[in-house]
Amino acid sequence: MDVRKIFLDEREIPRQWYNIQADMPNPMKPPLHPGTGKPVGPEDLAPVFPMPLIEQEVSQQRWIDIPDEVMEKLLIWRPSPLYRATALEKALGTPAKIFYKNEGVSPAGSHKPNTAIAQAYYNKKFGIKRLTTETGAGQWGSAIAFACKLFGLECQVYMVRISFDQKPFRKLMMQTWGAKCTASPSDKTNAGRDILAKMPDTPGSLGIAISEAIEDAVTSKDTRYSLGSVLNHVLLHQTIIGLEAQKQMQKVGLYPDVVIGCVGGGSNFAGLAFPYVRDKIHGKNLTVIGVEPAACPTMTRAPFVYDFGDTAKTTPLLPMHSLGHSFVPPPVHAGGLRYHGVAPLVSQLLVDRLIEARSVKQMECYAAAMLWAQTEGFISAPETSHAIAVAIQEAKKAKEEGKEKVILLNWSGHGLMDLTGYDAYMSGKLKDYELPQSEIDSALDEIKDYPKP
Amino acid sequence: MDVRKIFLDEREIPRQWYNIQADMPNPMKPPLHPGTGKPVGPEDLAPVFPMPLIEQEVSQQRWIDIPDEVMEKLLIWRPSPLYRATALEKALGTPAKIFYKNEGVSPAGSHKPNTAIAQAYYNKKFGIKRLTTETGAGQWGSAIAFACKLFGLECQVYMVRISFDQKPFRKLMMQTWGAKCTASPSDKTNAGRDILAKMPDTPGSLGIAISEAIEDAVTSKDTRYSLGSVLNHVLLHQTIIGLEAQKQMQKVGLYPDVVIGCVGGGSNFAGLAFPYVRDKIHGKNLTVIGVEPAACPTMTRAPFVYDFGDTAKTTPLLPMHSLGHSFVPPPVHAGGLRYHGVAPLVSQLLVDRLIEARSVKQMECYAAAMLWAQTEGFISAPETSHAIAVAIQEAKKAKEEGKEKVILLNWSGHGLMDLTGYDAYMSGKLKDYELPQSEIDSALDEIKDYPKP
Repeated sequence: MDVRKIFLDEREIPRQWYNIQADMPNPMKPPLHPGTGKPVGPEDLAPVFPMPLIEQEVSQQRWIDIPDEVMEKLLIWRPSPLYRATALEKALGTPAKIFYKNEGVSPAGSHKPNTAIAQAYYNKKFGIKRLTTETGAGQWGSAIAFACKLFGLECQVYMVRISFDQKPFRKLMMQTWGAKCTASPSDKTNAGRDILAKMPDTPGSLGIAISEAIEDAVTSKDTRYSLGSVLNHVLLHQTIIGLEAQKQMQKVGLYPDVVIGCVGGGSNFAGLAFPYVRDKIHGKNLTVIGVEPAACPTMTRAPFVYDFGDTAKTTPLLPMHSLGHSFVPPPVHAGGLRYHGVAPLVSQLLVDRLIEARSVKQMECYAAAMLWAQTEGFISAPETSHAIAVAIQEAKKAKEEGKEKVILLNWSGHGLMDLTGYDAYMSGKLKDYELPQSEIDSALDEIKDYPKP
Repeated sequence: MDVRKIFLDEREIPRQWYNIQADMPNPMKPPLHPGTGKPVGPEDLAPVFPMPLIEQEVSQQRWIDIPDEVMEKLLIWRPSPLYRATALEKALGTPAKIFYKNEGVSPAGSHKPNTAIAQAYYNKKFGIKRLTTETGAGQWGSAIAFACKLFGLECQVYMVRISFDQKPFRKLMMQTWGAKCTASPSDKTNAGRDILAKMPDTPGSLGIAISEAIEDAVTSKDTRYSLGSVLNHVLLHQTIIGLEAQKQMQKVGLYPDVVIGCVGGGSNFAGLAFPYVRDKIHGKNLTVIGVEPAACPTMTRAPFVYDFGDTAKTTPLLPMHSLGHSFVPPPVHAGGLRYHGVAPLVSQLLVDRLIEARSVKQMECYAAAMLWAQTEGFISAPETSHAIAVAIQEAKKAKEEGKEKVILLNWSGHGLMDLTGYDAYMSGKLKDYELPQSEIDSALDEIKDYPKP
């Protein structure tokens, strides 16, 4: 029988994170202070983040040691297994070999704890007592709740309203780990109250929830803000995924032709992809694909601009593909991918054509996730289903071309808390959203005079 | 750092199940035909089960080969990792070393697929097209739905009403794997309609759901019934857990002093414990503890009798500890443990003092599960929390006695679909149930004239 799972022994776990900034042909453009238009310095970020994370944010060092205290917690579930999707291959009749990194084995059920643990550790070490954050689908909120509990920090999560309503059990997970979870927009912050006054029925968005969490952090004692994606240090912490995958692929003597991850802010994609992008920069021939929802097409339809990371314009201006900070994506079930921008590092690599982008509609994603559940067994997060959909596209292409091909995707999380979307799909109530260009144009119009990267 | 996880390579997976019937000092008493009072023969069971499973039910062969087709599917998630609960040990300040077998990594989230896969395979091979079954908490229903999909069988699940209502996402899991899920008692069967007429507000019970599933199976074409626990062949299929655990414990050079599993019907307990009970029969010194809810105390407060396995008296008379087939346990959240009887093999070993039994109230179990979540990270099934509670009792005892001790428990499943109980606990609404002796007496009164084992 073919090997289905490749484990790493705990002693084989990577001991350093990989910082792609050391290898990029064109460095990332600096975030700008919206008032002065000048690059932001560490002091600008100090009210929001603890200094060790600000240092990682700007570090150009290629390898950054994982502290023992962080490693001890990562070992709760890491190294995560690499699986081969032999049953899916068979169902597709493809000559392609499909591998997936199973990040669903973490207590919170996704890749998110990889950075949550590190962030909680550095905040704790810096003397912080409480973290605030936002969450879309709830994966990030659960992860940071879990991490805060392990390090003895308080935790306040602002959860995008539509996900809060669709995924009631997520809140209970966060509470089980001792966190407070509030639907966003809320009446706890000025940013939330302003939005509620204007749009009382809004489904919410990550941009809005970020504004609330930042406001809470900068106005509360011993509190900092924690972001689950987008920023450089977050992507850095996720690279343990790709570094493990490389060791595991070596064990079966294969190298991927295609590497795939879904993209909201970009962290699970970057986590798997960046160590492979490094190889590509050094001459290796492979395709790296980020997959986003057609309903929130930042990489495929949005320009590379300077824009705010949140709706209330509290962040620095970030150089990224953005649909405009006021863009509220349609209520697709992949709540974790409903973000108007995408990580600056991912954006720069896309500009430099080191990675590719593809968008998929949610009906295709759920069809892919159903096939996955009925062959591989595991029920996927709606976000993860985007990576699966493109893996299936690539496997079918391999079949048409009669080519052997090695496909590697990041199975970023399970969907056991997200079955509402499956319900809608199975009962015929799910639909695709067409996103008219006019909606994008109008959100972009608001940022047309911002500096250009 | 201490090793937290011990993996087995896929090539190290056990290739045979262990049949404890070959080693028992006193053989299990035979099931009796309720009409004749004589031992049932294969022909009596043929309308309900396929012949290969009936053969396994009565087999005295010590080792039974796992077919390749079963192994191929088990490898989707097996071998399951063995974890050491170092963070819990630290929180308890105990000198004990606590290990747990993580059965939550299966697609359905528990140990149940171990037998579901095998049962679906043998039914398919025997020409059966459709399976019916009951489910308590939904773990078994999910598992058989998953297994049926992998082998292309139809699947009908009768789910105990209280769990159906408390765990709406379980139904969606089963549907995602193509099964039909109906709340029990239902109006689809005579047994269900009779119960509804007498007790329209009943929370249901496993005994009732079993009656419905059997009736459906024996009155439908090409259909058989599938049971998730209690029977010998089910326990047999679960022994892969203990056989793997033995190999994994060997890798760290330790042997458990105490082996613990929660007990409803008895299958996850037996799966971990039976290979260790074999060692005990052969002179090894260890304690094996089955843990049940105080609200459904079959092993600790019920006599060893002949009784029906279901409420409507459709099964043979089974030699087991039973509270009486008409006993409806209080609605504790551990739905999978709400069964009036316990596996005949487990009952016999209890009579022969090769295993011990302990009961725990649900408040203690949730307190244990909360401590587990906040140290080990993983959120446990309410059933599993019973094993955790006793592991903590044992670890505390080791601390008091200043003894090093190795504790091994079966972490039989995650609780991500069962957060309603955590909600009740955290919001102060959970309560313990006192079970008056009079209730037990009255249910037992009904079976007082049955044959005695």
